[in-house]
Amino acid sequence: MQKHFTTERLESLEKAYRTHLINSLGGFKSVALIGTISKSEVTNLAIFSSIFHIGAHPPLIAMIFRPSPPERNTLSNILETGYYTINHINESIYKQAHQTSARYDEDISEFEVTGLEAEFKNGFFAPFVKQSHIQIAVLFKEKIDIAINNTSMVIGEITEIYVPENCISDDGFLDIEKANTITCSGLDSYHKTVRLDRLSYAKPNKPLSSLSINCCD
Amino acid sequence: MQKHFTTERLESLEKAYRTHLINSLGGFKSVALIGTISKSEVTNLAIFSSIFHIGAHPPLIAMIFRPSPPERNTLSNILETGYYTINHINESIYKQAHQTSARYDEDISEFEVTGLEAEFKNGFFAPFVKQSHIQIAVLFKEKIDIAINNTSMVIGEITEIYVPENCISDDGFLDIEKANTITCSGLDSYHKTVRLDRLSYAKPNKPLSSLSINCCD
Repeated sequence: MQKHFTTERLESLEKAYRTHLINSLGGFKSVALIGTISKSEVTNLAIFSSIFHIGAHPPLIAMIFRPSPPERNTLSNILETGYYTINHINESIYKQAHQTSARYDEDISEFEVTGLEAEFKNGFFAPFVKQSHIQIAVLFKEKIDIAINNTSMVIGEITEIYVPENCISDDGFLDIEKANTITCSGLDSYHKTVRLDRLSYAKPNKPLSSLSINCCD
Repeated sequence: MQKHFTTERLESLEKAYRTHLINSLGGFKSVALIGTISKSEVTNLAIFSSIFHIGAHPPLIAMIFRPSPPERNTLSNILETGYYTINHINESIYKQAHQTSARYDEDISEFEVTGLEAEFKNGFFAPFVKQSHIQIAVLFKEKIDIAINNTSMVIGEITEIYVPENCISDDGFLDIEKANTITCSGLDSYHKTVRLDRLSYAKPNKPLSSLSINCCD
């Protein structure tokens, strides 16, 4: 049976209930760990489930920041230094990743309290997460304020990536499922995935076919 | 073995290869069907994998539009009429959903060519997808242009929802996995999910616990 929520019904919901419900409606989300470091050299690590692709030429990725405290250190570090990392979360580290959402004091590094390891490499200013299989170096480009609900969109350019060699297909497709990347839904539900198919480019009056995934193993 | 792509390497990649690669880096994405109708009453249905939650109070959801043709009808219908629907994709309809990305002429409805059924209900102006288990009615609020790569973010307010009664947990969490909602990665890879856990609200110095999911069955 389908349940129908009208505007009036949605408005009358208790706040936490509505937060869970509306958050779930967005579907499965890209969830990752954002690594930053302040000018005073305190590292910071925070989980975000509002990351999205906005273009490949140039390679741009964006995320939404809420005005709430745990996200503030990440945002101020990005704005202060211009650099951050995006690190995919896999099945082995999702609990530690979730723990980074606790409200630690500004002078405490979430790397230390969670046991996730900061990795500095190739001269990039911000720390990567060593346990992450897919690591992305990002250069801050632009912050766009979203007045309607006091959030901000931060856009960055992907400058370097580290990915498992055996997860790259011939056509550039990166098999993130093979890299054990997970997804989340709502505020707190984590999921691994099972591929249904890769489908060919759709054209009118042409049947779809399955695309092969040829990764070198 | 990790493979490292520097900026130079990323820039030198063949265009299609880079499109696949960069698209995959954003992680698993929320993918859904956007239902609209033009003023001249031609229905339109298009798959989008750039949908994201931006707030629960008010209930807001956003998506990114590229300047390319197949997305243009959806955008013009939304701007002309002010209404659209977001319909989750499940395992039974993902091939039909993918087919909506083909470049059909403006006067052809993707509902007709794919066999997905338009459902009008409760006086809402735009069509829902009958085969979709989670249906969301959205009122257009705002378009924000993203100059850096000529895309636009469209923000809408969720005004009504239809969800399976047996997928709503006591605390408002909607079990979209139980509703068979799928996710995608890259341009063309579709995945179902397997829950790892729901984790409790994180606090410093407090171990995480599993949250139960109590849906009425």
